[in-house]
Amino acid sequence: MSLVVQKYGGSSVADLECIKNVAKRIKKRRISGDDLVVVVSALKGTTDHLIDMATQICPIPDPREMDLLMSTGELISSALMSITLNNMGIKAISMTGKQVGIVTTDAHTRARIMDIQPDRVLQALAEGYIIIVAGFQGVTSKEDITTLGRGGSDLTAVALSAALKAESCEIYTDVDGVYTADPRIVPTAHKIDVISFDEMLEMASLGAKVMQARSIECAKNHQVPVHVRSSFNEHKGTLITKESPEMEKVIVRAVTHKKDEVRITIAKLPDIPGIAGKIFGTLSEAEINVDVIVQSSSKNGKNDISFTISQADREKTLQIVEKIKGEFGKGIEVGCQDDIAKVSIVGVGMRSHAGVAAKMFETLGKSGINIEMISTSEIKISCIIFEKDVEKAVQVLHDAFEVS
Amino acid sequence: MSLVVQKYGGSSVADLECIKNVAKRIKKRRISGDDLVVVVSALKGTTDHLIDMATQICPIPDPREMDLLMSTGELISSALMSITLNNMGIKAISMTGKQVGIVTTDAHTRARIMDIQPDRVLQALAEGYIIIVAGFQGVTSKEDITTLGRGGSDLTAVALSAALKAESCEIYTDVDGVYTADPRIVPTAHKIDVISFDEMLEMASLGAKVMQARSIECAKNHQVPVHVRSSFNEHKGTLITKESPEMEKVIVRAVTHKKDEVRITIAKLPDIPGIAGKIFGTLSEAEINVDVIVQSSSKNGKNDISFTISQADREKTLQIVEKIKGEFGKGIEVGCQDDIAKVSIVGVGMRSHAGVAAKMFETLGKSGINIEMISTSEIKISCIIFEKDVEKAVQVLHDAFEVS
Repeated sequence: MSLVVQKYGGSSVADLECIKNVAKRIKKRRISGDDLVVVVSALKGTTDHLIDMATQICPIPDPREMDLLMSTGELISSALMSITLNNMGIKAISMTGKQVGIVTTDAHTRARIMDIQPDRVLQALAEGYIIIVAGFQGVTSKEDITTLGRGGSDLTAVALSAALKAESCEIYTDVDGVYTADPRIVPTAHKIDVISFDEMLEMASLGAKVMQARSIECAKNHQVPVHVRSSFNEHKGTLITKESPEMEKVIVRAVTHKKDEVRITIAKLPDIPGIAGKIFGTLSEAEINVDVIVQSSSKNGKNDISFTISQADREKTLQIVEKIKGEFGKGIEVGCQDDIAKVSIVGVGMRSHAGVAAKMFETLGKSGINIEMISTSEIKISCIIFEKDVEKAVQVLHDAFEVS
Repeated sequence: MSLVVQKYGGSSVADLECIKNVAKRIKKRRISGDDLVVVVSALKGTTDHLIDMATQICPIPDPREMDLLMSTGELISSALMSITLNNMGIKAISMTGKQVGIVTTDAHTRARIMDIQPDRVLQALAEGYIIIVAGFQGVTSKEDITTLGRGGSDLTAVALSAALKAESCEIYTDVDGVYTADPRIVPTAHKIDVISFDEMLEMASLGAKVMQARSIECAKNHQVPVHVRSSFNEHKGTLITKESPEMEKVIVRAVTHKKDEVRITIAKLPDIPGIAGKIFGTLSEAEINVDVIVQSSSKNGKNDISFTISQADREKTLQIVEKIKGEFGKGIEVGCQDDIAKVSIVGVGMRSHAGVAAKMFETLGKSGINIEMISTSEIKISCIIFEKDVEKAVQVLHDAFEVS
């Protein structure tokens, strides 16, 4: 008998019918002998409806109150799941973030987990209950309700797995697992059976939407293997786990792409020290994630700096850049380009194989795809290209590196 | 500067527009200098929607889970009210039942308040906040979420008023106050300015729907004057307060009626001791409220027992009676009559005025209304009559006792 933490996302608990189907799965698993802690997201549409009501009142509602409001979505689904299981004759009990002992920072709407004190969970498990946990939430040390931000329920599941020393952590979603590329673009793309934490971390930042980066980071830090799989079938999914020597044999694990990129160019900056520090420091303070940065020296002692950001941060970034450019003198030009995208290859095998970057550039070049910017890490290479080329780029890279 | 506890019911916070209107009232009151603790009910329809989802899963959902589910309605409205006030520039903070320190029994879906530890409320008041309390809920000593049953938000307001030693407790609803009779039946019925706790208690049990009996009981026990008034105008409402000698001058404060009564008759019971005790003991254990009881000796050493109950308890009562009648011998007949109603007159003045009952019976008799059963207390007289006569009965009694 082993302890398993499962998490069912919004599409798995879309309505009462879906809840019933998930409950049947849980029952089956329970009968097979496992102890279960089940984290649920809100019913599909609930969180959006709550946010919509609040933003009808004002564009930026008080974050503490938003957290109380948004936390109710998961409370509702956890109660309904527990009612469904009890009705099937399975002992189940719902627990709030507070009741499972999740203590967070007081950064409302994006709180970080500080500590988990799962005494109540352990006691209820010992009493034979399945614990249905309202995901996405915790409480501050003052017992104010907080939410964990995007992908918060995944984080609840991973962090609880670590705190409970669970045998495994299973993230149920509406896809079969993590794919070598978006199957809508690459018909030969296939599900990855095993992937390392680091590869998955890169993929999350590079546009794969299966799990948020910080949940994977949490899993990596606590060495919690995560099994991503579908709640609509019985297929084996993708196991995210620690790196093994076997994994290095594959050079490219996956090809990812991200379309919502924007390139900002600040041209004709004077060539004096500290300018880049000032720009990116200010953006960082405003919590804007800057992705690829390229600085090129131009004529007459003037520099150009280009960088990419997410589409969501576009207006905020432009406002900040317009505001600080005055400090650097006159004649500075700010440009913004929306029709770009990022294509990346990821794989721990790159570390031990030479010439991967060259092969990537060559492959794109042969297909007539221009590379605008490049960014690399030990296990990934990203190219900023024009958005019109992105499908083709993913296809040719997937072929060239024989990812299939 | 005085501390005021207000409660806004479901019709006062029906939607975002209503919340905004209530927020304006609160702001105005705040600016006039009062400290405010505001208890809110769920948005109209929310609780019904939640119950509907649960009962789609099973007819009698687990009560602990129902409480978590139902508590979310008030969490949502308290967050939205707080967001609205903050957006108007008024410092407001929402609090859950737990955060205001309401500790209850663990009788889920109908918990009783055991204790209130309002430290957080007092601190936030001292910091200049308006406290928006999610009504209808508390937590057990084990920190499980409970709800207080029907009219629970009124109880939250009254109990908080007592715990905080508030200057006044104001219950906002969609009517102007408590009326001398249902204005839809008696056009000359008018709002009562002041009524005693005991009179209001009787009225609540007799069919007046403004407030639940146990909230009034709580107000009486803690001597908290309650002001029932409309949230849609500025009229003075009805003050429910301790009895004063002045009040006895009025013989009949109000005429009430209740249509959802059922009369059960158990005929041909053997005349042996303990039978009535057995019947009503069993019904009481099943939490069925028996109202008027009449026992009449019939022929051949056999008795008839008749009693009235609420329509809601009809099936349960019949089941119980059918089950136990076998214990009393053979030939016992059980009858059930649905077309009856109760009309009552209430007033503390009855205590010091003779002949009130006689006048009531006479008045009904003159109008050709037959009295089936009678029940009296020190300050009320109730008659069971046929349902078809109820409007007329209310009218003639209201006239005869010059309640207008």
